[in-house]
Amino acid sequence: MSDNITLSLSQVRELSESVLFSNGFNAEHASAISDIIYTNQLGDCHSHGLYRLFMCVESIRSGRASGTATPTISDAGPAVVRADANDGISLLAMKAAMPLLIEKAKQNGVAALAINRCFHFSALWPEVEMLSAAGLAGMAMLPSHAWVAPAGGKRGLLGTNPFAFSWPRHGKAPFTFDFATSQFARGEIELYRRAGNPLPEGVAIDSEGNPTTDAKAAMNGAMLTFGGHKGSALSLMIELMAGPLIDDLTSKESMAAAGGKPEAPYHGEIILAFDPNMLSGGRVAENNDRAERLFADVIEQGARLPSQRRQAAQVFNLERNELEIPRALYEDLLKLKKG
Amino acid sequence: MSDNITLSLSQVRELSESVLFSNGFNAEHASAISDIIYTNQLGDCHSHGLYRLFMCVESIRSGRASGTATPTISDAGPAVVRADANDGISLLAMKAAMPLLIEKAKQNGVAALAINRCFHFSALWPEVEMLSAAGLAGMAMLPSHAWVAPAGGKRGLLGTNPFAFSWPRHGKAPFTFDFATSQFARGEIELYRRAGNPLPEGVAIDSEGNPTTDAKAAMNGAMLTFGGHKGSALSLMIELMAGPLIDDLTSKESMAAAGGKPEAPYHGEIILAFDPNMLSGGRVAENNDRAERLFADVIEQGARLPSQRRQAAQVFNLERNELEIPRALYEDLLKLKKG
Repeated sequence: MSDNITLSLSQVRELSESVLFSNGFNAEHASAISDIIYTNQLGDCHSHGLYRLFMCVESIRSGRASGTATPTISDAGPAVVRADANDGISLLAMKAAMPLLIEKAKQNGVAALAINRCFHFSALWPEVEMLSAAGLAGMAMLPSHAWVAPAGGKRGLLGTNPFAFSWPRHGKAPFTFDFATSQFARGEIELYRRAGNPLPEGVAIDSEGNPTTDAKAAMNGAMLTFGGHKGSALSLMIELMAGPLIDDLTSKESMAAAGGKPEAPYHGEIILAFDPNMLSGGRVAENNDRAERLFADVIEQGARLPSQRRQAAQVFNLERNELEIPRALYEDLLKLKKG
Repeated sequence: MSDNITLSLSQVRELSESVLFSNGFNAEHASAISDIIYTNQLGDCHSHGLYRLFMCVESIRSGRASGTATPTISDAGPAVVRADANDGISLLAMKAAMPLLIEKAKQNGVAALAINRCFHFSALWPEVEMLSAAGLAGMAMLPSHAWVAPAGGKRGLLGTNPFAFSWPRHGKAPFTFDFATSQFARGEIELYRRAGNPLPEGVAIDSEGNPTTDAKAAMNGAMLTFGGHKGSALSLMIELMAGPLIDDLTSKESMAAAGGKPEAPYHGEIILAFDPNMLSGGRVAENNDRAERLFADVIEQGARLPSQRRQAAQVFNLERNELEIPRALYEDLLKLKKG
């Protein structure tokens, strides 16, 4: 018996929607969440695909996240959209606010979307790729939980604080990246711990603030940012931009609010959109060519553009109209369905 | 005889202005450039202080940069300011456009300034600190010359591509950082070469694309970005945001245009401004407190905020109303004055 099971693409969506629906998410939330679960699974981003349904369901079962909250979208300034998720998962608020963000960016040249009071479990590349699909450049940031020490520090304070960016390429998959500003993801450290393998140097400190390669000591201590003091500075910027700037929680506040529960973190998110047409004075075609020469120069010297692997998987899985997931995951997801 | 000479703060400004003025910069350019030279010297940022006058003068003596160009400031969209430097040094254009950028950020919540067709020699923290002094958060980026290889690459393509951010703190020096996305600055590699010291690992590759710790081989090869593929992705974003997005040159195009001359690089710059008042829905005081708790938590665990050393030097030098510079630099600057 194979360890994998093959699902058609429509089965992936149906599985996600039925798990969510049977656990109390209404049709709007189940659809908005499944859009993103599906998109990640299509790109073989397993950690942010169907696997994340456990976290979604945990968030609603704990009684803290709402599966039926209607987000409040407001025009909060000429170039600002506010989306109050009203304690729902972020994705319905994001989906509902995105058309106004795109409109404002095209009207003003640049615009910001602040998503507030949301539970967040998803990768950031889907939202910045919604912007690049609309011909805009996009940037997104958010905090998480205080697992990461600042450079020179001894204790967790910063989140894994992801940063994502996407640039539209006419007729091609966009240039996109989406990375944690921590050296490792939290889940990676857990995998080392389970396997009993030592961590690489420079990834974590123990509870005394000393460098460690012991994954268990790291789980009780703190992770480090990528890139030393520069990565730490960026992570602090993300705390500020997606926290106090938009009237929402820092990673430390988010972790305190969660009280150790395994649900999705609760905080805000900021998404920025830039209109190449207005910012280039209407010279989009010439500047597309200039960007394409830059990308060609990257590839020509044997380097890779970020997201190429994920984008290739999306094309491959779409063409064959099916994909594989581990059988154990499939069976666990069936058990997660109620009724 | 001391190797240093003490100058009063007004002498620092006068020295800078007289060197620039006697070399053909008009009063407006000499003043705008000297503002920034002075501010850097005040913070003991020697590499971006009076020392940079050599690069300014080189840029005008080569006949390429204009010392008299009047920048063209235009209202390029509800949230966009364009400052065409018309082949002058960037700083007069930046200074002239800053009030409109601040006004637009406060009106719209977020705004962008694109500086085009400028020669650029300066650090980025002064411009983002102009924004934080006005109560805004600020971000700035620009390309340089193609000395840095993308992750997995073999040749220089990206610039040292600095990224700067500042956050306003009421009654305190702002939270600010300004770093190159290359692991080292170009000048640092040159210092290792002169001293005959080996470079640390991970800083550079030779002309064949192989890792090297030989500074001479590095100067003929390429530098690496900080933070591996994440730093490389950020550097590519900076090429796009401060290049094709605003109709200006990439680092490769800028280097080709310079033809190996030691003048300041010629390209564009993007500056973004964010209004905490509009973005927080008017809840500035509560969110200042939240940001201050974050900073206090950094300091309390023995870590440092970026720019603390420079900001302390500014206070120290302002209080005593004088500062030291190397005597040799002083004498070379006197020689740089014409007439």
